[in-house]
Amino acid sequence: MNEAPHLTFDLDAPGVSRGHLVVPGGADHEEFSLAVFSLNKGEGPRLLITGGNHGNELEGPLVARRLIEWLPKAQTSGRIIVLPVLNPLAVQAWSRNTPLDGLNLNRVFPGRADGSVTERIADAVSRVLLPNADIVFDLHSFGPTWDFPPAVITHPIADADLMAKTLAMAAAFKLPVTLLWQHDDTAGMFDSWAHSLGKVFVCAEFGGGTVSAEALAIYEAGVRNALVTLGLVEGKVEDVSFRNKRSSQTLETLISNELKSPAQGIFEPRCSVLDEVRPGDLIGILHSMDSVSAPSIDIRAPGPSIVLAIGSGAHVDRNEGVAILARPLHN
Amino acid sequence: MNEAPHLTFDLDAPGVSRGHLVVPGGADHEEFSLAVFSLNKGEGPRLLITGGNHGNELEGPLVARRLIEWLPKAQTSGRIIVLPVLNPLAVQAWSRNTPLDGLNLNRVFPGRADGSVTERIADAVSRVLLPNADIVFDLHSFGPTWDFPPAVITHPIADADLMAKTLAMAAAFKLPVTLLWQHDDTAGMFDSWAHSLGKVFVCAEFGGGTVSAEALAIYEAGVRNALVTLGLVEGKVEDVSFRNKRSSQTLETLISNELKSPAQGIFEPRCSVLDEVRPGDLIGILHSMDSVSAPSIDIRAPGPSIVLAIGSGAHVDRNEGVAILARPLHN
Repeated sequence: MNEAPHLTFDLDAPGVSRGHLVVPGGADHEEFSLAVFSLNKGEGPRLLITGGNHGNELEGPLVARRLIEWLPKAQTSGRIIVLPVLNPLAVQAWSRNTPLDGLNLNRVFPGRADGSVTERIADAVSRVLLPNADIVFDLHSFGPTWDFPPAVITHPIADADLMAKTLAMAAAFKLPVTLLWQHDDTAGMFDSWAHSLGKVFVCAEFGGGTVSAEALAIYEAGVRNALVTLGLVEGKVEDVSFRNKRSSQTLETLISNELKSPAQGIFEPRCSVLDEVRPGDLIGILHSMDSVSAPSIDIRAPGPSIVLAIGSGAHVDRNEGVAILARPLHN
Repeated sequence: MNEAPHLTFDLDAPGVSRGHLVVPGGADHEEFSLAVFSLNKGEGPRLLITGGNHGNELEGPLVARRLIEWLPKAQTSGRIIVLPVLNPLAVQAWSRNTPLDGLNLNRVFPGRADGSVTERIADAVSRVLLPNADIVFDLHSFGPTWDFPPAVITHPIADADLMAKTLAMAAAFKLPVTLLWQHDDTAGMFDSWAHSLGKVFVCAEFGGGTVSAEALAIYEAGVRNALVTLGLVEGKVEDVSFRNKRSSQTLETLISNELKSPAQGIFEPRCSVLDEVRPGDLIGILHSMDSVSAPSIDIRAPGPSIVLAIGSGAHVDRNEGVAILARPLHN
C-alpha cells in the first residue's frame, strides 16, 4: 500500500529546508518526488510559488530556480515555499499536458488520490502544500507559439473582497500587463480551487516564444517586486521595461475577444503585442497553402482594442485562435 | 500509372504565371500539388525561391507570400520562380520532418521518383524546377526553440569560385549575419545537391522563436536587398537593423563550436545572440529538475566567440545542443 502524499522535511523548521513532495504511485506510474525549497523566517505572509504546471512553459521553473539562489540572503519575514516543477513528466516531454494520461494539470484540481498520475500531483499539492499558504503565485507563460507581454492574470472571482485583493496582488508585480481574464474553461484550475478556499492566487503569464536571458530578467524583477510589496524581502519596487512599451496597464479580456482563423491556412501576424488598434485595423492575414491564386483573407480588429496576444506565423486550422484583444479594465 | 512530376503551366510564358508543381502519388500518399508562382521578364538571372522545407519554419513561406504580392510591380528582368511551401505535410503538422515517412526533406535530395512521399517531393523539385534556375534561395529559420539572428548561410564548397560567388550572394541580403557553416550532416541537403550542379545556392536562416510581424519585415528586407543586387528588381539596398546589434558580420562556425548539455536537466540561457564572449564567460546554467539541493552546472565559453545561437529555456538531455558559438571569418 502506498503512503499518503507528504513532504520529506518539516515546513515549520526555521530557516532553509530543501527536500521533496512525495507523490504516491498508482496504476500508471510509480511513486515519484517533486523538488521543494522552503524558507521559514517566522511571522509574516505564507507564500507558495509554483512553476512547471504546463511542460512547455519553462519561464516559471527558471525564475523559481533564480529565487532559490537569492532568497536565503534576502528574505526577512514570513514563509516562502518554492516548487519549481509541478509536472516533471510534462516538462521532460516539452508538452502542455502530461503525456502518460493526456491530462492538463491545470484542469484537474483539487485532484484525486486514487486518480491517474496528473490527478495525484494535484492531490498532493492540494493536500500538503496549499493548506500551508495564504497566497500563491503559479508561474506560467503563453508558450512557444504566441507573442505575449509579461503579465499577471486572474480570472473573475465572485467574492468582491478577494477579487480586489487578488487584482492588487497581480498589480504588485509591476509587469507591463495586469489582466482580468474571463473565460469559460476554468473548471479544475489551480487558481479556481485556491480562490474557492479564500486564498489570494495569481497566475503569472510570463510572455511567449523563446525563453531568453533578457525575458527571464524581466520576469524575475516582477516576482521580486511582489515579494517586496508583501514585505517578505527588503528592497525597492522597480519599474520593469518591455520593448519600450507603456507599462503597468490593467486590462480585461472576454471570451469573445479571441480572434479565430476563418479557414485553414498559414497565418501571418501583422501587428505586435500591446499595439493599440482601431476597428478595421489589420491583425493578420490568412494565406492558402494550396494555391498562390486564391486571395488571402485579412483578419481585422472588430473594435478599438489593445493587442494582448498574437499567434506566431504557423499553419492553423479553421477556428483556431490567432489573436487575443483586450481593453482597459474599468472597475 | 502515375505521371512524371510536372508543372501545370509553361515557365517560358512571359509575365506572371500561377499554378502547381504536381508530385506523383506512391504507396504512402496520393498525388498532390505544390503551389508555384513564376514571373518571367526575359533576359537576366534565373532565380528559384523556396520555403517550407521544414514544417516548423514558417518565416520562409510567409516571406515568399509577401514577395508574390509585390514582385509583379517590381521585377524588371530575369525569371523568378517562388514555391512558398516545399513540404505541406510537415507544415500542416508544425513538424521539422514529414510525419508520414519520418524523413527530413533537406536530407533526401535529389530524391527518388519511386521513393516515399518526402523523396518524391525532392525528386519533383530536382527534376522540374532546379534545371530552370541558376540561383536558389531556400528560406529556413532556426525554429521555435532557439534564439538566432537573421542570417544567410552556406556550407563550405570545394569549388573556390562557386564558394566565393555563394558567399557574395549571401552577403547581398545585408542581414546581420553571413555565415559559413561547417558541419558533417550535409548528405542529401538541397544546397549540397545544387552546389554539385554548379548553382549558387544560399540558405536563409531567418532567426528563431516566434514568427512575428517585426521579424518578417526584417527578413523581407533581406530578400529585397538580394533581388536588387541581382538586378531583378529596381531599388536601393537598405540597411537592416536587428535589436541594435552590429550588422553585416561574416562569421564562421565549426562542428566543435556547438556547446552541448553536460547532463539532463533544465537549461537556463544566460547570454544573448550576437553577444561577444570571452573564455569563461557564462553561456547558460543547467539545473537539476529532481533536486533543489544538487548544485547547478555552469556552461561557459571555451574561447573568445560571438554567440550565434542560444537555446530556449527547456528540458534538455545529456549531449543536447544548447548554444552555437562563431568567430569572424577570415578569408
